[in-house]
Amino acid sequence: MKISKDQIQDANTKTIDSHNENFSFLSEQLSKKGHDVSNIISKLSKFQVAIPSWALGAGGTRFGRFSFYGEPSSLEQKLDDVGIIHSLTQTAGSVSLHIPWDIPSDYSAIKEQAEKLNIKFDSVNSNTFQDQEGAKESYKYGSLSNISKAVRDQAIAHNLEVIKIGDKLGSKSLTVWLADGSCFPGQNNFQTALQNTQDSLKDIYKGLPNDWSLLIEYKPYEPNFYSTVIQDWGTSFMLANECGDKAFTLVDLGHHLPNCNIEQIISMLMLKGKLGGFHFNDSKYGDDDLTVGSIKPYALFLIFNELVYGMQNNPQNPDLAWMIDASHNIKDPLEDLIQSIEAIQQAYAKALLVDQKALKVAQQEHDVVKCQEILQEAYRTDVRPLVEKTRFDIGGAISPIDTYRYLNVRNELIKERGKHTTATGL
Amino acid sequence: MKISKDQIQDANTKTIDSHNENFSFLSEQLSKKGHDVSNIISKLSKFQVAIPSWALGAGGTRFGRFSFYGEPSSLEQKLDDVGIIHSLTQTAGSVSLHIPWDIPSDYSAIKEQAEKLNIKFDSVNSNTFQDQEGAKESYKYGSLSNISKAVRDQAIAHNLEVIKIGDKLGSKSLTVWLADGSCFPGQNNFQTALQNTQDSLKDIYKGLPNDWSLLIEYKPYEPNFYSTVIQDWGTSFMLANECGDKAFTLVDLGHHLPNCNIEQIISMLMLKGKLGGFHFNDSKYGDDDLTVGSIKPYALFLIFNELVYGMQNNPQNPDLAWMIDASHNIKDPLEDLIQSIEAIQQAYAKALLVDQKALKVAQQEHDVVKCQEILQEAYRTDVRPLVEKTRFDIGGAISPIDTYRYLNVRNELIKERGKHTTATGL
Amino acid sequence: MKISKDQIQDANTKTIDSHNENFSFLSEQLSKKGHDVSNIISKLSKFQVAIPSWALGAGGTRFGRFSFYGEPSSLEQKLDDVGIIHSLTQTAGSVSLHIPWDIPSDYSAIKEQAEKLNIKFDSVNSNTFQDQEGAKESYKYGSLSNISKAVRDQAIAHNLEVIKIGDKLGSKSLTVWLADGSCFPGQNNFQTALQNTQDSLKDIYKGLPNDWSLLIEYKPYEPNFYSTVIQDWGTSFMLANECGDKAFTLVDLGHHLPNCNIEQIISMLMLKGKLGGFHFNDSKYGDDDLTVGSIKPYALFLIFNELVYGMQNNPQNPDLAWMIDASHNIKDPLEDLIQSIEAIQQAYAKALLVDQKALKVAQQEHDVVKCQEILQEAYRTDVRPLVEKTRFDIGGAISPIDTYRYLNVRNELIKERGKHTTATGL
Amino acid sequence: MKISKDQIQDANTKTIDSHNENFSFLSEQLSKKGHDVSNIISKLSKFQVAIPSWALGAGGTRFGRFSFYGEPSSLEQKLDDVGIIHSLTQTAGSVSLHIPWDIPSDYSAIKEQAEKLNIKFDSVNSNTFQDQEGAKESYKYGSLSNISKAVRDQAIAHNLEVIKIGDKLGSKSLTVWLADGSCFPGQNNFQTALQNTQDSLKDIYKGLPNDWSLLIEYKPYEPNFYSTVIQDWGTSFMLANECGDKAFTLVDLGHHLPNCNIEQIISMLMLKGKLGGFHFNDSKYGDDDLTVGSIKPYALFLIFNELVYGMQNNPQNPDLAWMIDASHNIKDPLEDLIQSIEAIQQAYAKALLVDQKALKVAQQEHDVVKCQEILQEAYRTDVRPLVEKTRFDIGGAISPIDTYRYLNVRNELIKERGKHTTATGL
Repeated sequence: MKISKDQIQDANTKTIDSHNENFSFLSEQLSKKGHDVSNIISKLSKFQVAIPSWALGAGGTRFGRFSFYGEPSSLEQKLDDVGIIHSLTQTAGSVSLHIPWDIPSDYSAIKEQAEKLNIKFDSVNSNTFQDQEGAKESYKYGSLSNISKAVRDQAIAHNLEVIKIGDKLGSKSLTVWLADGSCFPGQNNFQTALQNTQDSLKDIYKGLPNDWSLLIEYKPYEPNFYSTVIQDWGTSFMLANECGDKAFTLVDLGHHLPNCNIEQIISMLMLKGKLGGFHFNDSKYGDDDLTVGSIKPYALFLIFNELVYGMQNNPQNPDLAWMIDASHNIKDPLEDLIQSIEAIQQAYAKALLVDQKALKVAQQEHDVVKCQEILQEAYRTDVRPLVEKTRFDIGGAISPIDTYRYLNVRNELIKERGKHTTATGL
Repeated sequence: MKISKDQIQDANTKTIDSHNENFSFLSEQLSKKGHDVSNIISKLSKFQVAIPSWALGAGGTRFGRFSFYGEPSSLEQKLDDVGIIHSLTQTAGSVSLHIPWDIPSDYSAIKEQAEKLNIKFDSVNSNTFQDQEGAKESYKYGSLSNISKAVRDQAIAHNLEVIKIGDKLGSKSLTVWLADGSCFPGQNNFQTALQNTQDSLKDIYKGLPNDWSLLIEYKPYEPNFYSTVIQDWGTSFMLANECGDKAFTLVDLGHHLPNCNIEQIISMLMLKGKLGGFHFNDSKYGDDDLTVGSIKPYALFLIFNELVYGMQNNPQNPDLAWMIDASHNIKDPLEDLIQSIEAIQQAYAKALLVDQKALKVAQQEHDVVKCQEILQEAYRTDVRPLVEKTRFDIGGAISPIDTYRYLNVRNELIKERGKHTTATGL
Repeated sequence: MKISKDQIQDANTKTIDSHNENFSFLSEQLSKKGHDVSNIISKLSKFQVAIPSWALGAGGTRFGRFSFYGEPSSLEQKLDDVGIIHSLTQTAGSVSLHIPWDIPSDYSAIKEQAEKLNIKFDSVNSNTFQDQEGAKESYKYGSLSNISKAVRDQAIAHNLEVIKIGDKLGSKSLTVWLADGSCFPGQNNFQTALQNTQDSLKDIYKGLPNDWSLLIEYKPYEPNFYSTVIQDWGTSFMLANECGDKAFTLVDLGHHLPNCNIEQIISMLMLKGKLGGFHFNDSKYGDDDLTVGSIKPYALFLIFNELVYGMQNNPQNPDLAWMIDASHNIKDPLEDLIQSIEAIQQAYAKALLVDQKALKVAQQEHDVVKCQEILQEAYRTDVRPLVEKTRFDIGGAISPIDTYRYLNVRNELIKERGKHTTATGL
Repeated sequence: MKISKDQIQDANTKTIDSHNENFSFLSEQLSKKGHDVSNIISKLSKFQVAIPSWALGAGGTRFGRFSFYGEPSSLEQKLDDVGIIHSLTQTAGSVSLHIPWDIPSDYSAIKEQAEKLNIKFDSVNSNTFQDQEGAKESYKYGSLSNISKAVRDQAIAHNLEVIKIGDKLGSKSLTVWLADGSCFPGQNNFQTALQNTQDSLKDIYKGLPNDWSLLIEYKPYEPNFYSTVIQDWGTSFMLANECGDKAFTLVDLGHHLPNCNIEQIISMLMLKGKLGGFHFNDSKYGDDDLTVGSIKPYALFLIFNELVYGMQNNPQNPDLAWMIDASHNIKDPLEDLIQSIEAIQQAYAKALLVDQKALKVAQQEHDVVKCQEILQEAYRTDVRPLVEKTRFDIGGAISPIDTYRYLNVRNELIKERGKHTTATGL
């Protein structure tokens, strides 16, 4: 199923008047306060976030999985799903593939399909946290960090293979999430595991095309419950430095210990020119992978505040690979992703409203009350009309969720695909 | 120093036009969506939160204290400070005294002063976590839970004395925050400590006037770092049940383990008719006592959502004693309290915008996406014009912080009191 | 495969001399300090902990599962596995079944097998956190708490069915772990969910035979990541009180927020006569379900210290249903369970060495240093000879793990069952 | 008060027989297992940990302080206290001064006193988290990170002054604990604060004598409750690398987010040659500063396991500056410190018992069960006789706490100093 521009325009007619009224009022108020509204909209419209191929089916927990209907069962159908989201939001213009779940059988056909849908291939992801059928070596006790050279070599070869696949599709970065670690004290020698990981990453780095980046993810725990080799940003940063200029740290919002100040980490990495990628989600307890903005929207705003600051002040830092990394256990995955995109856009819009000049002055004067007022002034603004306007201007839906439902998308997908399909992936 | 109505009106003239424009637009939009704006404003205007007497001076940490200028050094001056906040916000119409820091020397004079300032005496607080000069027994190893009967008796007598003082002032509840606990395994027998606490509370309960309530606070740690006798809502709830119908649980937002779902606790307590009081603050790590709404405003909204639901649906639950319990280490305490009040009012206003009927339907249909949309619709609304309007209508400042600064209040206080005063209390 | 007494005795000959030497030295030292060693051994030998039927195969995480070889694929084989553990340790004399995974096809045959293995049927567990094939209603949005009466009725009926099955086998309690909750704010009405749960539990309670207990488990999060209906001991305690005298709280060590003082909860519940069951495991981050004692053995000791105290001083509390609730992702499940049993026995032995009289005196004198010394004196004692002696005297292995390996148990199981079997359950 | 060798020998006579019996049995058992007992004792006897000058008086919390009797009120008396601990334990052979609390008035007298007590001057600590009377600039909004150059310059000058003081006393390192951070979002610009800190540290580093080290501490929160400039090991490591070869990271056990795997951090830093110092304490919730080993002794063992491994395998890492950094709110500070030393020595002794060769083999074979057994074999050993023997051989007390009490030390100190003295410091 594809959504046509006409369908969207049709749906927009229902809300366009109300939207116009809200937007013109907000726009006027913001202009009075000195904001350049069209510049903000221009920035918002350029923001594109990747959808991971595995996020289009229902997720689950170790206790079970409740499947959703009409899930995509092929890479082609996954692309179609991303296409649907992108049609509605105009913000999901890329897909992030997970190998080996998504190896194309026909590269040119897939590329052609993606082009038609106006979707690019963002960072490719390797998988060495599960064993693949027929694999010679097992990752049960680790992959890139494994004490066994044979296992490490297999994991390195897999990563190099992923690069090749991505290269054929136009990807420009490899994301390595290394689940390696241990469940019990003594199981691993920390130093050996770290050294092996460093050496393995360097081997992968050598195979990286010149215009590619290596993005090194970190996570404190799960699926290992005593230690994780790349447990925090510091370890990732150290490894990225060891690898070279094309290696960067990737931050996933759910991969931190309780109460961690994530926005400070982002700020430091951008200052050092080492923030390469960013995975969005939300969480209350651990790596809960909930819809972006559903639990701590103010923290998301503070993070965007640092991202905006870095994008404006840190030319030493590269463009970021953005991706939504959420799991969808009890919602329609497409609706969930649309809610995530909405939350991201709103947080970005609010961050663009922060009066950076006034903030700097207040900081210099140690006027803490004022500093807080400036951030809250931006955050408390209802920016929905700005985000709607951005989408509308580039052909998207004013209200993506409503339009998705109005067009009966899920029912159409079930008709096309059948009810009890299962997406590859987790 | 006192702020007159004229001064406030004068300050309001600067922002009244802009406010009117914003309010009429918002009001119209809300009315279209079916909200009864005047009813919301009426509810907001009735909401009054107590200021604790000790919160008017600079706080500190165990590592030191950086004092603020012009702090109140007597109960009279503290009342004046509350009066200033109340003049500006019209929301701080009561004070919560801490004994023995705030024992009045002349009751009728204090009552007269309070009446002039339109301030009531809310819950009185006992203090058995510090030794008072000349006290016979020490609370070093606990008070109401102490294994020594002499110590327990002293602590019970102190609480009864606090009731007497409060009674003379018109207070109607006693708040017991029991810091008792242990720093090391083995130091206390948990069962003995709990039993002693239960017996001590019952003795205090017996001395409670008929129209009074006993509010039992809980906290997992600090100042004790291994165990706290009343460590969670479950323990407080159990003790309140043992005491009787006039005993209730008091929730302080900062008194929970990491990641705790506080709104659910509130909801359960109201269902059982046992939520008696509520202390506002915000925190990122522990009992940080930061300005309300400065860290997790969405959690505050979710909490208010349950409070509003309970106030509308749980006649079995009493009216709540509301108090701001924050510490002000690096801000002007009065400005900090005004920021807290603003955040509280906004969260309350947003909670009043939740479409309870639609939510119920979405819940019944297991439409999780819709449930989230309904809450976010309310939360994302910029309710500042509503809160401004509420204040303005009852004689407060449209912009309390700006007005406070415009009137040079802190400088006036310094002139009156001198620079290097110190508030009693923490 | 079954292990004969002869095989164990044979293996014991290798270590008996060294064991005797260690035991007689320790025994002498303990006697000098006033301990009644034979009494301690007698208590240790009476301690039996249930093995859950699902714990005999490899577990996994949401990211995947690495299977183990020779897993049991029928209830009969699971019983055999428990028999192996019990032969070696003489401490695993019961099994805890999970329905519907373990419904016997022939009750008398199963009972006969269990009797031969000297294994009893402990608490039975219902499962309403997964959908069963062919089920009319889905538990995707909850079971006992579900807003839909049809779903609640199905879940209640399932629990009543589980009681019937357990009754035929000689079980005397039903354990309800209710995974119900929500992943997003607004998804559930907390009050409705709690009220429904209370009503459902009361319905189940009505179907409880007179000599049975209802054990109500609690857990803060997972598989739901915003709220859980029975989130903490307070909620479980409240529900147990609502149900009646035969309803109790069940504590699982992994089901708490970070840093929670679990031993205090245990102590309070025993004082109130409401601790009914106990699930052992260990964890560093969340409900990690690691081998007992592998991460925080001192906390385990402190917990046993309260359990021993309660067993000695709280006649109002019933005998406890003990169970190991760990997951075995990277170890041979049987070896893992043996390590857990060893850790439990050592913690229990150490708790039995605490000088309760001296501790009471030190507490009364507020001699905190001494209190700590008393607990550490017990904890620092190397009690392995005591535990070995206990096992040896009743026919078990001095070194269960070594004996398990010496007898090549896993290889024998693989020979019998084949390599690539899969256990039912998680 | 000073404790003579005779007094200690006298006290030892009471326990020597029992000690000898225990030691010879343990020694024999360990030798049978292949351990070189005299080598272990030799290593234990060389281990010396510094006592911080401020730890000899009672600490407190922000809620108050319960003082202890006979506290040292001068640097001379503090040295005497360290001397008492060292006499008893023979393990506290150095003191770590905090400036400006402990500036000597007569350097040669202090050095002479220290020499007589056999005490060295370990790392010196600067203090820029409190304002000193008469200081021109305030650290209320930060010191080395402050946006104001004047404040930064004052803080840098203070650190250089501390180096000078330490140099006169024979210290060889400066420890910088930087409390700088912010309490509210927006208060600080993270990048500016980090850049300023880096520049300030470099300025201090320039003033470092050639044979000195700069030890950079980190801490996630407190006294700032939104952000801390040096929030984690990664930031400290980055700053140390920027400074140069003489700059290192200092790990304080209490300065981590909940559930952090500290032993892995230690291991990584030693591999990279950047672990410079170590502060011992224990905690359950935050930076609780409890007696070492009183809450998580197994974690302490795992940490020592990495320290021992690093000391044996990482010549690239310098000798460590060890210090006890605990607060003593409800215990006699000297007894508390003795308990801490005992716990440290036991953890060290147990780590020395780990069979590194067997562990390496088990790790290579992925025998996770065996790896755990090897660590637990060491940990479960009762090493108290080893530690007693170590102390006894070099003139210390077999039972330091008992001897301290037997000699009535605290009473003697009260006689000498009076009851109501107050130690300088926190």
